[in-house]
Amino acid sequence: MIVNKIQKRICVTGLGHIGLPVACILATSGYAVLGVDIDDRVVIRVQSADFMDPEPNLQDLLIRAIQNGSLEASMNVAPADIHIIAVPTLLVPGNKPDISYVNAAIDAIKPHLRSHDLVLIESTCPIGTTEAIARKLQQACPGVHVAYCPERVLPGNIVHELIHNDRVVGGVDEASTAHAVTFYQSFVRGEVIATDVRTAEAVKLAENAYRDVNIAYANELSMIADHMELDINELIRLANRHPRVQILKPGPGVGGHCIAVDPWFLVAGAPDLAILTLKAREVNTKKTDWVIQKVRQAIRENGATVVACLGLAYKSNVSDTGTSPALAVVQALEREIEVLCVDPYIPNTVTLYDALARAEIVVALVAHRAFLNIPSHSLAGKIVLDFAGVFK
Amino acid sequence: MIVNKIQKRICVTGLGHIGLPVACILATSGYAVLGVDIDDRVVIRVQSADFMDPEPNLQDLLIRAIQNGSLEASMNVAPADIHIIAVPTLLVPGNKPDISYVNAAIDAIKPHLRSHDLVLIESTCPIGTTEAIARKLQQACPGVHVAYCPERVLPGNIVHELIHNDRVVGGVDEASTAHAVTFYQSFVRGEVIATDVRTAEAVKLAENAYRDVNIAYANELSMIADHMELDINELIRLANRHPRVQILKPGPGVGGHCIAVDPWFLVAGAPDLAILTLKAREVNTKKTDWVIQKVRQAIRENGATVVACLGLAYKSNVSDTGTSPALAVVQALEREIEVLCVDPYIPNTVTLYDALARAEIVVALVAHRAFLNIPSHSLAGKIVLDFAGVFK
Repeated sequence: MIVNKIQKRICVTGLGHIGLPVACILATSGYAVLGVDIDDRVVIRVQSADFMDPEPNLQDLLIRAIQNGSLEASMNVAPADIHIIAVPTLLVPGNKPDISYVNAAIDAIKPHLRSHDLVLIESTCPIGTTEAIARKLQQACPGVHVAYCPERVLPGNIVHELIHNDRVVGGVDEASTAHAVTFYQSFVRGEVIATDVRTAEAVKLAENAYRDVNIAYANELSMIADHMELDINELIRLANRHPRVQILKPGPGVGGHCIAVDPWFLVAGAPDLAILTLKAREVNTKKTDWVIQKVRQAIRENGATVVACLGLAYKSNVSDTGTSPALAVVQALEREIEVLCVDPYIPNTVTLYDALARAEIVVALVAHRAFLNIPSHSLAGKIVLDFAGVFK
Repeated sequence: MIVNKIQKRICVTGLGHIGLPVACILATSGYAVLGVDIDDRVVIRVQSADFMDPEPNLQDLLIRAIQNGSLEASMNVAPADIHIIAVPTLLVPGNKPDISYVNAAIDAIKPHLRSHDLVLIESTCPIGTTEAIARKLQQACPGVHVAYCPERVLPGNIVHELIHNDRVVGGVDEASTAHAVTFYQSFVRGEVIATDVRTAEAVKLAENAYRDVNIAYANELSMIADHMELDINELIRLANRHPRVQILKPGPGVGGHCIAVDPWFLVAGAPDLAILTLKAREVNTKKTDWVIQKVRQAIRENGATVVACLGLAYKSNVSDTGTSPALAVVQALEREIEVLCVDPYIPNTVTLYDALARAEIVVALVAHRAFLNIPSHSLAGKIVLDFAGVFK
């Protein structure tokens, strides 16, 4: 890591799945970091370096940052050379963007801003958001720098990717862009690429809508393969031997904070044009219902009374169940039958051993590592429905 | 090349953009090949080794094959150890699959079949086609082998890819699969992978629908970027710095014999399920209309009288205009204004020099190599509309 000779003070607002790793990386890169969150439980857990998260390396970085005093946590912002906004952006009913947390974070830092401070927005935003925020901030504090820089990391590999991925940075003016580029170059080992602020915002939306469209294609293909009585895993494995084809893995739908949300920001900005993007959201949502119907059909046809569901998280090898399609499947089934939930990342779930001992139907929903080597003899005599490519 | 000690006789029906290269490769790999086509002009051109095609290495292979007597051409099939069907499959109105050429080719070879002959279908087919054909052939000739093996080559690189790409082979029974695998292994340097016949058919459809969906996403994003006043080439270049994002290049739509056609075979087989696949077709078709509207708008706003269109082929660096969206754009504009068409691969088009000298508006439709280094001073004072990423 490059250590800045003059220790700059950084305030990171939002200590969630992006903000906390960012704060820890900066605090162990020579910066003095204040992490801010509106949730007092989060602040207390960060202060005591007590964070139960399977994210690799995060716990170690947090302990180092707290022990050497370079990371503090608070519910209140304070003056800083650089403010990073890493709060969630959500959807309101009707799937319109909700940037109220970003606006609240901006309102909180505004009284503390000084000329030449840098405000960095990392939260996913509709195109044009950063310019609107900059107008407000530069009116209150002339000379403040404002830039947008989307994160583009994979949950399960966040710490590594925050450091090693390329970053796209767009400031509202040249001074803001230059300031932001210099800052990211101080701790990012990938390339830091300057562009304009609206393009930087659009890049994040384009990335996640691309992922959503490609997952939707895999999910659609899995339903077609089932209809045609073909093995979807074999079909995709063979299609991907084509030099220009890389079909993703299907699953029970799409969850999480980015891919299930960000495409709606693109749709909201251009509803008449983002029609494939919209259809991809529909297909990925429909896939969850299709999975539920498939399990119901198997229950009915086999007169089953106990179902084991492998995986509750929204993707493999993470603990997060936020907007998880696997959780939605389980919740639908629980109203009708006894469901044994197995997820090694989530407390109070059933062990794999117990679930396989009791269930007549085994439903794979998430390809957690722990599920990939289940011996076939332990599934003998059971109906197996694999929606996550676990038993291929 | 591996040369078979006992020279087998191969009959290739269909001498189009796949059949002719296949016939030439086999004829220069030690096989005795009869190429068959219903078009006498094609037969005569092959017999005289006179084939104007920009496909690299094809002309050389053809001359070698004709000169050493290992390739003959005819309008009539003859007995052979292996029959390869490489005729086009098309769409009838309503976008339903039309496999009448395949059926006609099968009817033509049927009287010549002997037990243990191998019939290989390379034409793209709806899932289930090969099994239906095999039932008919094995009834007429018990013991005949039937298999499906899709080609997956890039026009502009066909000869290389026919030899080096992996191939997927599915026979209607184990003997057919084994026979077909052994045959392809005799001249393919990529891996030859065995599967069942329906999966082999589905693989081709899944590959091209994947490509169509991804081109549709690029085309949709280009329209959104235009609406948001963003540079689509910059947006895609930056998004593709994401480790898991690879957005394709947008263009004026999708043409050709595969990507614009094959997704309809998937839609026809599962109309209630292939909804993203269908929407991708709609977006790619809509993109052509959108391009026409954009050019019309530029003509109107600038009072232009002459437009230069760069590119007529359906993709870069090929001469084929079959279902070319660039051609559709030109044909729409020609009804309204003087259009100077430039395409170095197509006879009787205008030179780039003459077109740039006269046109007020320059419309880039195809990213032919010849267009990629046009000096900016030769575009000075002109309105430039770039729908192919030529001037980025």
